[in-house]
Amino acid sequence: MNIRFYNAKILLPGTGHTFQLIEGELWVKGNRIVYIGDGTDTSRIYEHVEPEGILWDRQIDVGKNVLMSGFKDAHTHSAMTFLRSYADDLPLQEWLTQQVFPKEALLKEDDIYWLCKLGIMEYLTSGITSNFDMYFAPLPGARASSDCGFRTVFTSGLNDFCESLEEVEDLYHKINAMSDLTSFKLGFHAEYTTSLKLLEGMAALADKVRSPVWFHNAETASEVADCKKRYGKTPTQLAESLGMYAYGGGGYHCIYFEEEDFEIFKKRRLIAVTNPASNLKLASGIAPVKRFLDEKIPVAIGTDGPASNNCLDMFREMFLVTGLAKVKEQDAACVPAEEVLYMATTGGAEAMGLSDCDSLAEGKLADLILIDLKQPNMQPENDFVKNIVYSGSKQNVLLTMVNGEILYEKQKFFIGVSAEEVYRHVNEIIERMRT
Amino acid sequence: MNIRFYNAKILLPGTGHTFQLIEGELWVKGNRIVYIGDGTDTSRIYEHVEPEGILWDRQIDVGKNVLMSGFKDAHTHSAMTFLRSYADDLPLQEWLTQQVFPKEALLKEDDIYWLCKLGIMEYLTSGITSNFDMYFAPLPGARASSDCGFRTVFTSGLNDFCESLEEVEDLYHKINAMSDLTSFKLGFHAEYTTSLKLLEGMAALADKVRSPVWFHNAETASEVADCKKRYGKTPTQLAESLGMYAYGGGGYHCIYFEEEDFEIFKKRRLIAVTNPASNLKLASGIAPVKRFLDEKIPVAIGTDGPASNNCLDMFREMFLVTGLAKVKEQDAACVPAEEVLYMATTGGAEAMGLSDCDSLAEGKLADLILIDLKQPNMQPENDFVKNIVYSGSKQNVLLTMVNGEILYEKQKFFIGVSAEEVYRHVNEIIERMRT
Repeated sequence: MNIRFYNAKILLPGTGHTFQLIEGELWVKGNRIVYIGDGTDTSRIYEHVEPEGILWDRQIDVGKNVLMSGFKDAHTHSAMTFLRSYADDLPLQEWLTQQVFPKEALLKEDDIYWLCKLGIMEYLTSGITSNFDMYFAPLPGARASSDCGFRTVFTSGLNDFCESLEEVEDLYHKINAMSDLTSFKLGFHAEYTTSLKLLEGMAALADKVRSPVWFHNAETASEVADCKKRYGKTPTQLAESLGMYAYGGGGYHCIYFEEEDFEIFKKRRLIAVTNPASNLKLASGIAPVKRFLDEKIPVAIGTDGPASNNCLDMFREMFLVTGLAKVKEQDAACVPAEEVLYMATTGGAEAMGLSDCDSLAEGKLADLILIDLKQPNMQPENDFVKNIVYSGSKQNVLLTMVNGEILYEKQKFFIGVSAEEVYRHVNEIIERMRT
Repeated sequence: MNIRFYNAKILLPGTGHTFQLIEGELWVKGNRIVYIGDGTDTSRIYEHVEPEGILWDRQIDVGKNVLMSGFKDAHTHSAMTFLRSYADDLPLQEWLTQQVFPKEALLKEDDIYWLCKLGIMEYLTSGITSNFDMYFAPLPGARASSDCGFRTVFTSGLNDFCESLEEVEDLYHKINAMSDLTSFKLGFHAEYTTSLKLLEGMAALADKVRSPVWFHNAETASEVADCKKRYGKTPTQLAESLGMYAYGGGGYHCIYFEEEDFEIFKKRRLIAVTNPASNLKLASGIAPVKRFLDEKIPVAIGTDGPASNNCLDMFREMFLVTGLAKVKEQDAACVPAEEVLYMATTGGAEAMGLSDCDSLAEGKLADLILIDLKQPNMQPENDFVKNIVYSGSKQNVLLTMVNGEILYEKQKFFIGVSAEEVYRHVNEIIERMRT
């Protein structure tokens, strides 16, 4: 689409992990941002214009609201929407083995397709323009993202009970080739669900295809203790000793880290994805986010799956990242708002390998959102970054654009299927599970 | 207004702290709910109908969405909207003495009026139908609530620097007589800002007017330690020893409680108001909510003021109440969703003395909200109570009614003044503060 946003405030990257707000216009041509400026600099404008001028599909008066880069949800399991509010108030291991795994075994490919679409719809309502999805069967999810026009980076969830190394290698090539909107990184579920043989195979495959490797890492204290009993090493140390991190990657959750784990993350420039709402709801713990920042270990933010959160809302996560750090460190000044907004946008893009849509800039992919300042929670207009991190909410998301296409605007979805159709499918699936 | 809601799901109180969802109709006549049922029980219907039948102002097809009791925000400082995102990332004492108090000293009465209106607007977006507001100058706030048609229970914020006991007694009578929408309970700011002489006077006044007493209690560890140094007692023990609780009341925050404090709360049936987002943001700590429930001490939920939260959102608070309890107790099963929803509705009403609008029932005041289930975060429809506590968001609030009047519907406000006018005023106030 060729879209001209005008009369806008535009949130641009500043130096380091800061932001700057300018006033002006942002032009999208096809799937890319071709111009950001005050709209008067004609020499810069005309280089992007056809001889006859750009033919605008739409010109949108932004009404002095804020255009910013879309959020990147750096750890999800979209298909688990079906278990939202189904099996709550249980500890992680019981929840996983007695509720999640048995119900997931009943899922058909087509179920996963519809359940992922529901997840994508919720991402859009929260201004999330791409997600980093681990699931044991990623192909129907990739089809859902591609059909909706949504950007998803997948990672395999290899473990002893599903997927083989051969399947993972096959998925790696298939999904990376499938569409501009989908890509694939290597991953396994977690140390405690994956045999040493498979872990060694994963390390070899990472070396072969030159992929980073991701897994659930140090989510609970018992997970780390058990791993040390088995191997005399934490999950991070084990992965490092197996040569898993030659091409980078990182961990989801990353709560119970030892000194050497921080060292390995620093040395390899691995990325810690924090999942605060899930870590509260499953009583897992509070991640050492301030320490990650102090060590200059990059941090990204994920909602985790809708069965353990239960919503897919980057606003809630952003508040929690800073709020939990503050109470954990007993320091109300730590992990300030700008750092958090950086994690939720550029930090997430770094985790997912999406350097082409990590911020708003000319030439980058048009993955952006429009934030309504004319809501009481954004008033007075003291400080936009603080307002959005401490007070922002889904109701502030006026528009979500992925790859140059508007997929969500004024609470309506433009993803090739009606909301009602998606709701009907997912309710049928859970009805079937119950019987 | 005479309004017929039909084709609705209606959330009614169950036994104890549970809820039940029925399908049917809810009728509002004037400011009261006159009928809840399936709309076919004509004998019950006709007792509420004039000879010529009720003349409906509106008949609203609820589309199988959920009507429920409005949320009660049991601890607020509405006027502090002006400091939202102004002085963040500071510890409580520094924030209070170096930022809040000096800026508040610059406020004029009319400023407080407009700042409270902004707070009321945000409450409405979050389905909050009444708030329990402590502020040193409550009269302009009471005027704002009354002019907007919003329900507010005020409490004095007596301390060594503002208000006298005579002024508090005067406010008590004035605000309780002012309008059906405003009432007043006694309160002082906190032990650490109030001399023993004033505290004794407050106890005598409570006895005289037979009011419960409220104050910030055990918000930080140092507050409790300092109080013990001064008096050899915690704030709760001190208040009890002064005879402050003869007519009940309770505390805001209630984080650092000793055994005897729990005993006093039980014995006096005092109410603990928890403020989880504020307690994170100011690094104060995590309240012992599970223990309160175990001891059968009633709990209510408050957002605290917008300078320390920074948003006024009961959905975020509800998730935090259960999430923080789970991680604090290392027990993912504790403080389940129904308990939290009870705290946010009936529990809050109990704290505020609003037994006439604490739940949906025939004869009660029509303080209610309409929740949109046709949003991805409410799908699939596994369990409404869990969906709303774990996944709910401001964008699910379709309509907020207070005292039988619709004050907010489909993101529009009906409070006698335009949103733009309120935003203009509050931005002017903060501009003036800056210079």
